[in-house]
Amino acid sequence: MPRFNPLVETLAAPPIPSVFAWGAAYDGRSGPMIDLSQAVPGYPPHPEMLRLLGEYAASRAYTGYGPIEGEDVLRTAYAAHLSEVYGTPLQGGNVHVTAGCNQAFICAAMAVAGAGDTVLMTDPYYFNQETTLAMLGVGTRFAPCDPANGFLPDVAALAAAITPDVRAVALVSPNNPTGAVYPPDLLSAVYDLCAARGIWLILDETYRDFLPEGAGRPHDLFGRKGWEDTLIGLYSFSKSFCIPGHRLGAITAGAAVVEQVAKIMDNLQICPPRSAQAAVAAALPLLAGWREENRREIARRVEALRATMAGVPAWRVGAVGAYFAFIGHPFGGAPSARVAEKLAREAGILCLPGSYFGARQESYLRFAFANADAATISQLADRLGRFALD
Amino acid sequence: MPRFNPLVETLAAPPIPSVFAWGAAYDGRSGPMIDLSQAVPGYPPHPEMLRLLGEYAASRAYTGYGPIEGEDVLRTAYAAHLSEVYGTPLQGGNVHVTAGCNQAFICAAMAVAGAGDTVLMTDPYYFNQETTLAMLGVGTRFAPCDPANGFLPDVAALAAAITPDVRAVALVSPNNPTGAVYPPDLLSAVYDLCAARGIWLILDETYRDFLPEGAGRPHDLFGRKGWEDTLIGLYSFSKSFCIPGHRLGAITAGAAVVEQVAKIMDNLQICPPRSAQAAVAAALPLLAGWREENRREIARRVEALRATMAGVPAWRVGAVGAYFAFIGHPFGGAPSARVAEKLAREAGILCLPGSYFGARQESYLRFAFANADAATISQLADRLGRFALD
Repeated sequence: MPRFNPLVETLAAPPIPSVFAWGAAYDGRSGPMIDLSQAVPGYPPHPEMLRLLGEYAASRAYTGYGPIEGEDVLRTAYAAHLSEVYGTPLQGGNVHVTAGCNQAFICAAMAVAGAGDTVLMTDPYYFNQETTLAMLGVGTRFAPCDPANGFLPDVAALAAAITPDVRAVALVSPNNPTGAVYPPDLLSAVYDLCAARGIWLILDETYRDFLPEGAGRPHDLFGRKGWEDTLIGLYSFSKSFCIPGHRLGAITAGAAVVEQVAKIMDNLQICPPRSAQAAVAAALPLLAGWREENRREIARRVEALRATMAGVPAWRVGAVGAYFAFIGHPFGGAPSARVAEKLAREAGILCLPGSYFGARQESYLRFAFANADAATISQLADRLGRFALD
Repeated sequence: MPRFNPLVETLAAPPIPSVFAWGAAYDGRSGPMIDLSQAVPGYPPHPEMLRLLGEYAASRAYTGYGPIEGEDVLRTAYAAHLSEVYGTPLQGGNVHVTAGCNQAFICAAMAVAGAGDTVLMTDPYYFNQETTLAMLGVGTRFAPCDPANGFLPDVAALAAAITPDVRAVALVSPNNPTGAVYPPDLLSAVYDLCAARGIWLILDETYRDFLPEGAGRPHDLFGRKGWEDTLIGLYSFSKSFCIPGHRLGAITAGAAVVEQVAKIMDNLQICPPRSAQAAVAAALPLLAGWREENRREIARRVEALRATMAGVPAWRVGAVGAYFAFIGHPFGGAPSARVAEKLAREAGILCLPGSYFGARQESYLRFAFANADAATISQLADRLGRFALD
């Protein structure tokens, strides 16, 4: 057989399907499987969302090719939404629609870095961002996040890691996998660092809609003078509208970045899927109240998780927020994949090993608790309390 | 501003939107615009297709994440279709669904080549394949297609161009931009060459459903023993079902290639848009008769184009077939972009300059004639006959 691209061949298999395989081996002995693996909302989309998706998909108006950058109606609606979220005016021209946030990330990464360049990330990191860079031949360097500081990144550590080959710092807040919410001041300091060093800040805010109610704006970076020369924001409509299967995300950036991304997207898929864009544009203002209810529901799940984990103190909550908790398991030295696999097969708890998010994270597991309602979350205490590794 | 990736920054802007801009400047003096620019079917999708798209998009069943490789129902239905088209058994495991054929190409290319490797193409080439490789840092080399031989590739020229850095030969048949249909014997010879030299053959058959009726099988390559070690087939559902806006394509390959592509696709977009996959799976057998009618309709348009162009012999038909004709303009030495822009602005004929498909193609224009019905095509003679460049 002719050779494959070694950068792709040496990538590990996608992690989620392998974890599902562990779950498939569970015999139900502890009750129904509690799936905390993939970050998917544990409640259905609003009926009006489904109605809009159906209506536009059945329309001839969206069967042809559309604009590479996305439907004008969605770019405008999302820009209006952003203007409200960040309290500063953003325009449709600042938005490039993508087929989900993984695609937003690869487009942003390719726009600023090629083979031989480096992107600076945190450790732990979101695995798909790391594998995306690896398959492009883009190097990665990692600034460790201190568990003692709630897994927040350390600005001095980031600064020290910026060598001339670094083209961007990539952050995720609220964080995947830890759930840590980066305070505005911290984001501001990283932004200043990037601006001063002449590199990009790629900020993935997929879980932005699940910040605690009344916490104020996520940050003020889109209001900074000249932000277009430093900041590239990423987002996903999947979680907020419960429609990951329809694949919609967005990049928020200056016009010059949008222009570069359009060239990449033209090669990647010509345009994002169209009818779902029109549906989400209509749903954005329409379902604002429903999304606020969900924000409160997820906040209740955070509280349920904290309360539940207090009952099994051997399992430490490293961080928790928005969609995720990063949980320290009590089996010091045991590989996290071994713990996670046995939790799936025997305790009926499906979660991701910390090692998937960085080699230093063997003592942790990621719980995507937003998948489960509070009653289900409360069952974790009993299952974890009875769990033994050997 | 921090720097962009020079491989992306130096790419030209996507060509289709710039051509649309020429069309927007047309004042209608010669009658309604005849749009032969982008390859889109000039008739609507079947009402049943729209009904299915609407039904599945409104279903909660497709709102979650789906399998990376595509919905089982579509992989199975498409494999059954392929088995019939090629007269040899293919399985669902040989299929990886993508969001359109550009995405199928980038996945195939990345699976086999990285920065510093080379992919061998024909000249003329489909521009998005060239820009895709360029932005990845993959080198390209071109084997010229002789206009005197109907723009068919020359096997000896391909053989001579295969140096140790070449990982794959990329062909498109029926060809974009020329419309040339590569005979089974020619494809067989290129396959043998690739197999003998230990490199991949990436064969884009986006326009396969528009081969002339009764022309026999496109080729027998999927029936070859060990084809999985040489051949990667690409396809688009956009043209056959008139749904480019829903973004669906497919890769047909051995299980080992599908496994590599899944790793890339997981990073690119996790899974293809789901509800349209279910709709196309249902439509594949259901609309077989309708697709055959369209094949005949496109064949009538081929005849209409030939008849029309016979009336303006100064405009030479370099090649014609399936969706495209490659037309030699009568203004020797004039840049094809100048001819195409003036045709758009003054004659109301929107087409692509040959130069978009290779520096050697300045004396040609691509007519995507399938966009227009026979009556519209017949109007070309008058407009071309009266057209003067200066």
